[in-house]
Amino acid sequence: MATELPATIYDVETPCALVDIDRVKKNVQRMIDNCTNLGVELRPHMKTHKTIEGGELMTAGTKRKIVVSTIAEAEFYADGGFDDIIFASPMVKERISKRVISLATRLEAFHVMVDSVVGMQGVIDTPLDGDKKWNVFMEVDCGYGRTGCVWDSDDALMICRKAAAAEHVRFQGLYNHCGNTYVPDKDQKSQIQLTTVDRLVELKKRLEADGIPVPRFGCGSTPSCSRPINNMGVLTEFHPGNYIFYDYMQVLVGSCSMDDIAMKIVTTVISHKPEVGTLVVDCGWNCISQDGCERPKDTLPLGYTPIVDHPELRMRAMTQEIGKIEGNGEAIDYSKFPLGTRLYLYPHHSCATAGLQPKYYVHSGDKILDIWIPNRGW
Amino acid sequence: MATELPATIYDVETPCALVDIDRVKKNVQRMIDNCTNLGVELRPHMKTHKTIEGGELMTAGTKRKIVVSTIAEAEFYADGGFDDIIFASPMVKERISKRVISLATRLEAFHVMVDSVVGMQGVIDTPLDGDKKWNVFMEVDCGYGRTGCVWDSDDALMICRKAAAAEHVRFQGLYNHCGNTYVPDKDQKSQIQLTTVDRLVELKKRLEADGIPVPRFGCGSTPSCSRPINNMGVLTEFHPGNYIFYDYMQVLVGSCSMDDIAMKIVTTVISHKPEVGTLVVDCGWNCISQDGCERPKDTLPLGYTPIVDHPELRMRAMTQEIGKIEGNGEAIDYSKFPLGTRLYLYPHHSCATAGLQPKYYVHSGDKILDIWIPNRGW
Repeated sequence: MATELPATIYDVETPCALVDIDRVKKNVQRMIDNCTNLGVELRPHMKTHKTIEGGELMTAGTKRKIVVSTIAEAEFYADGGFDDIIFASPMVKERISKRVISLATRLEAFHVMVDSVVGMQGVIDTPLDGDKKWNVFMEVDCGYGRTGCVWDSDDALMICRKAAAAEHVRFQGLYNHCGNTYVPDKDQKSQIQLTTVDRLVELKKRLEADGIPVPRFGCGSTPSCSRPINNMGVLTEFHPGNYIFYDYMQVLVGSCSMDDIAMKIVTTVISHKPEVGTLVVDCGWNCISQDGCERPKDTLPLGYTPIVDHPELRMRAMTQEIGKIEGNGEAIDYSKFPLGTRLYLYPHHSCATAGLQPKYYVHSGDKILDIWIPNRGW
Repeated sequence: MATELPATIYDVETPCALVDIDRVKKNVQRMIDNCTNLGVELRPHMKTHKTIEGGELMTAGTKRKIVVSTIAEAEFYADGGFDDIIFASPMVKERISKRVISLATRLEAFHVMVDSVVGMQGVIDTPLDGDKKWNVFMEVDCGYGRTGCVWDSDDALMICRKAAAAEHVRFQGLYNHCGNTYVPDKDQKSQIQLTTVDRLVELKKRLEADGIPVPRFGCGSTPSCSRPINNMGVLTEFHPGNYIFYDYMQVLVGSCSMDDIAMKIVTTVISHKPEVGTLVVDCGWNCISQDGCERPKDTLPLGYTPIVDHPELRMRAMTQEIGKIEGNGEAIDYSKFPLGTRLYLYPHHSCATAGLQPKYYVHSGDKILDIWIPNRGW
């Protein structure tokens, strides 16, 4: 790659993704500090950036204790020397492929997650060769309602009993994703954080009373772990992911400031359309995603993808490779944006935008230092 | 790839994309027939599938006369033996990179598109080496308002005069994308088709009256070319792209039927959440995009991504690797969808969903015949 490296951020062809390494390092260190302060281990999620380099930074070089969202990611990190990896998606028997078995066999600790009795039984019914045991976390739903076994349900107890009793299973503990902390109101967020911890603790006690040890129990989400409450210190681990890059959505829910966003898309003004009030850039939804933007874009002060240093502009709409930018309140002064002008866009949801990139140009200030190649697929 | 080829569509790991080759061939042939019937040349757009194999089918094996949306695509097809390629995005001087110059030099006919006087001047000011000339189309805006020079503007005449007069430029003609034909109402669509053709013809006459020959003039969009009106027969070429796969959006605007959609995503039921009325699948917006879905999903009869053969279900929402499916009117009968059940999703906009795939499994009936690898990036 080195031979292809553009010298500065002004030398890249557009559109493309820039990653500000200084912001990344700051974001990563802040999360490490949050965990240290609370005495909780950090198990970062790789799903946002999906790069070896980002994983090394997030694990402070240990390459241990990570979470992944796909089997392709698990293989990518295993091949890159990482271990102690949770595949954080409910396991069912039909998903136990050769690839999953290979990961469970070759890694010291490849953890699967289950959220159903049927799923748990499926793992038990598929023993690994030799002495190797399945490492199993139970996913707990503490109120978010996406996946996970409901914290106070009979099934929660039954799953853990099965895990604890099965010869070829090592029950690792409880995993929770508190996606319901993506709320702007601080008090509401604190309440959700509190409830989440309380419910995990209550379930842990119930299991222990039943004779089932719970070595680990953690929760994750970038909003909750970026602004943790003290009670979260009772947990053994956090597993946020998005914080490596952050994005506009995280700004809107109070996780970070605009100056923390470490990923930007560079784009070029390629057309002026004063008759419809837009200027057109060479970045559409094939490069910066609208996915993950649940709020109507008209309710967002800067649109769904803020234009760096230009609050007077906003993205009106996109097609595949085209972005239509309009004035944010006032008409565009086209003389300030001649054809060929470069603009920088902050992603609304960096997980979605990162997933569209074949590479990230990593820079410090203006200088490009490296190219990171993300994993993709499933 | 052949060694990795799963035998049938039931053997692939989920999530992934399936491409039904029989539907592709039918869609491709229908468009060829539409063009033949009207006496118009077909110059298919590659942006949807971005594969060599799809390009060969769409050009009926000639590998000539195509349109691309990125420079990466242009290089990919040039390397694959294709020629006569339009890069259909407004060219400005700042975009004339070494890669663009290399394409213009090595191909017999690499066409750039301009929609501004400044952009045209930028091309003129960057002559190619030797005898090689720039091939230039002017993009015309006939009312869609995205990009293109407005059909009856002074600039339109000025751009073409410059192109025709410049020593190192070969003026190729007029290019129009009538994206405003993405409307469900047939009469409204016909009116837009009519207006588009009339305006292109009027501009052509104006140019010819000015002594500027217009060898080619065409329009494109899958809705307009799938249901062409007779007047479109005066054009020299059509350049639709999406029709190779079609999608639910094209069904909604009347371009095709559900049975024409040639791309599907296979996904697995991984969790039951009766307490919130959903079943959860292992496909989120990292695999099937919501981009390109402009209408509120509640107004779409089957949601934004119909579930094949299950109109009683609809996608409620997605996160990165998770899809939450709810009952479409009535509650879900979970006994019909045990954990591990496979479901098939039609993309809302196949261009966006195809852009997320590292590969397509190409099948005929149940049997998998091939894997196609799409180009990506810029």
